[in-house]
Amino acid sequence: MTKLEVIFLGTSSAAPTKTRSLPSVAIRREGQVILMDCGEGAQGRFVKFGLGLNREMIVLITHLHGDHVNGLLGLLQTMGMSQRIRTLTIVAPPELFGWLKMTMKVLHIGLTFDVSFVPVRSGVVYRGKDFRVRAARANHSIDSWSYLFEELPRPGVFDRAKAVTLGIPEGKKWSSLQRGRSVLVGGVKFSPGQVLGPARPGRSIGYSGDTRPTRRLTKFFSGVELLIFESTFSSKDADKALERKHSTASEAASLAKEAGVKRLVLTHFSARYRRADALLREARGIFPETVAASDGLVLDVPAV
Amino acid sequence: MTKLEVIFLGTSSAAPTKTRSLPSVAIRREGQVILMDCGEGAQGRFVKFGLGLNREMIVLITHLHGDHVNGLLGLLQTMGMSQRIRTLTIVAPPELFGWLKMTMKVLHIGLTFDVSFVPVRSGVVYRGKDFRVRAARANHSIDSWSYLFEELPRPGVFDRAKAVTLGIPEGKKWSSLQRGRSVLVGGVKFSPGQVLGPARPGRSIGYSGDTRPTRRLTKFFSGVELLIFESTFSSKDADKALERKHSTASEAASLAKEAGVKRLVLTHFSARYRRADALLREARGIFPETVAASDGLVLDVPAV
Repeated sequence: MTKLEVIFLGTSSAAPTKTRSLPSVAIRREGQVILMDCGEGAQGRFVKFGLGLNREMIVLITHLHGDHVNGLLGLLQTMGMSQRIRTLTIVAPPELFGWLKMTMKVLHIGLTFDVSFVPVRSGVVYRGKDFRVRAARANHSIDSWSYLFEELPRPGVFDRAKAVTLGIPEGKKWSSLQRGRSVLVGGVKFSPGQVLGPARPGRSIGYSGDTRPTRRLTKFFSGVELLIFESTFSSKDADKALERKHSTASEAASLAKEAGVKRLVLTHFSARYRRADALLREARGIFPETVAASDGLVLDVPAV
Repeated sequence: MTKLEVIFLGTSSAAPTKTRSLPSVAIRREGQVILMDCGEGAQGRFVKFGLGLNREMIVLITHLHGDHVNGLLGLLQTMGMSQRIRTLTIVAPPELFGWLKMTMKVLHIGLTFDVSFVPVRSGVVYRGKDFRVRAARANHSIDSWSYLFEELPRPGVFDRAKAVTLGIPEGKKWSSLQRGRSVLVGGVKFSPGQVLGPARPGRSIGYSGDTRPTRRLTKFFSGVELLIFESTFSSKDADKALERKHSTASEAASLAKEAGVKRLVLTHFSARYRRADALLREARGIFPETVAASDGLVLDVPAV
């Protein structure tokens, strides 16, 4: 089973604290990196956590507030200095792209690689070999998006006994069936469904970005293995969450419960809270399978 | 005597390392901050080193390479969230200003304070109550500038005995003379020079930014108390310094020696050197009063 990890590079909200830097979360899978938001200092975290600057990589930007975006400049510059050659894909609200181009020029940031810009929209925004990324509209003070990383289902387990019984000779024919292709044996056609068990579902990771909880997001994140949801405020400051279009820890937990996710990770904590303990307690009262993110936290997403 | 400190926020060159973040140096004097360059992560260092976001402050940008500038975005955003009200002065190559304005708009960074933009040019670029800042052209791969912070000379020590001998009555007349104004006593005019010792020189701090060593800079930094000079390369990599328009530790030391500075601080070390020891040794062989900067280093600049 492919190793799938989530690495929290920054877990503060708009302002950094002594222990939390600005929002950025990486998914690492088979040497590929999917970076969700890119707050200031992300490149330093890449060095610190050994993420590598030359990997296949997709950046997903939820919205154009500086604290979720500023780290891109340094990251791109350092990738250029590292002689990166692989194309970097950036999915983001389209205003980002003109700004990035102007910035590269004014700040003399020369790149050694191509950047593929994908304007975010509802639905599939990226298709990898064996995973895809979908986006859904969030509800924040400006145009804002949530993302969902989904492994594609893998074919079911190959039933050797059944294949022998059916008289399919071991070797190339078995491989073809395992890869989902039908084969001919002595003029008889055999389909993969005859020798494969049910398809094995892939794992999925949801990332809210900055948002109020909404019906749309409850549906979007339905049943995910790991939901990373913003928890800027405690429910004591629910009025501030409402006013500034953020979520409380309780709201994140209620959404996680209703969406039937496996695990919830709270992040994006306001600097007003010295520790996340109270927010975590509050959420666990509603949804026990909750953890609070901290800078440098690495979570393994096990096989389904 | 006013306390005058230099605080090194970031001491790497273009790419951060595990121990060095991107270029930025602060001068702190009577609650005022003069920030020289503003690499990514500067705002985090402000929090860490207690520099304060609401002080009188001037930012001096040497050149428009991203690694010397990117930290401005987060710093300005966080100052806005801290409800800063004091005007922030930024001295920089003028292309910065249009870019900053566009960036504030695209990244929704709202400010609660005014920014005063001063396009850098040769000569005095800022006049404070009792200090000034001068700029001189550096020699780098793009338009680049060096800065010099200078306290204004203070009036000489007041000679009480002499004032009594001259028959000047103690009180307002003495205060006026101390402040440099002539006074009349019984129709006779006395000038400050008659009762004050020689003017006491202020302290000065030079900052090279990215540059080759030049005759102009040797002259510009003549006799400063503290010279902060880039030392990207060791003299073993002198060819790279020449090619990329940087300086070696030896070149920085030779310039410091020739300029007759009191103390030299090397900074802006290339990530290729794991430790700055060899560069420091190399410089001390030429100019013994040399130290190597590290992130968080605080240097006191004592009275002259």
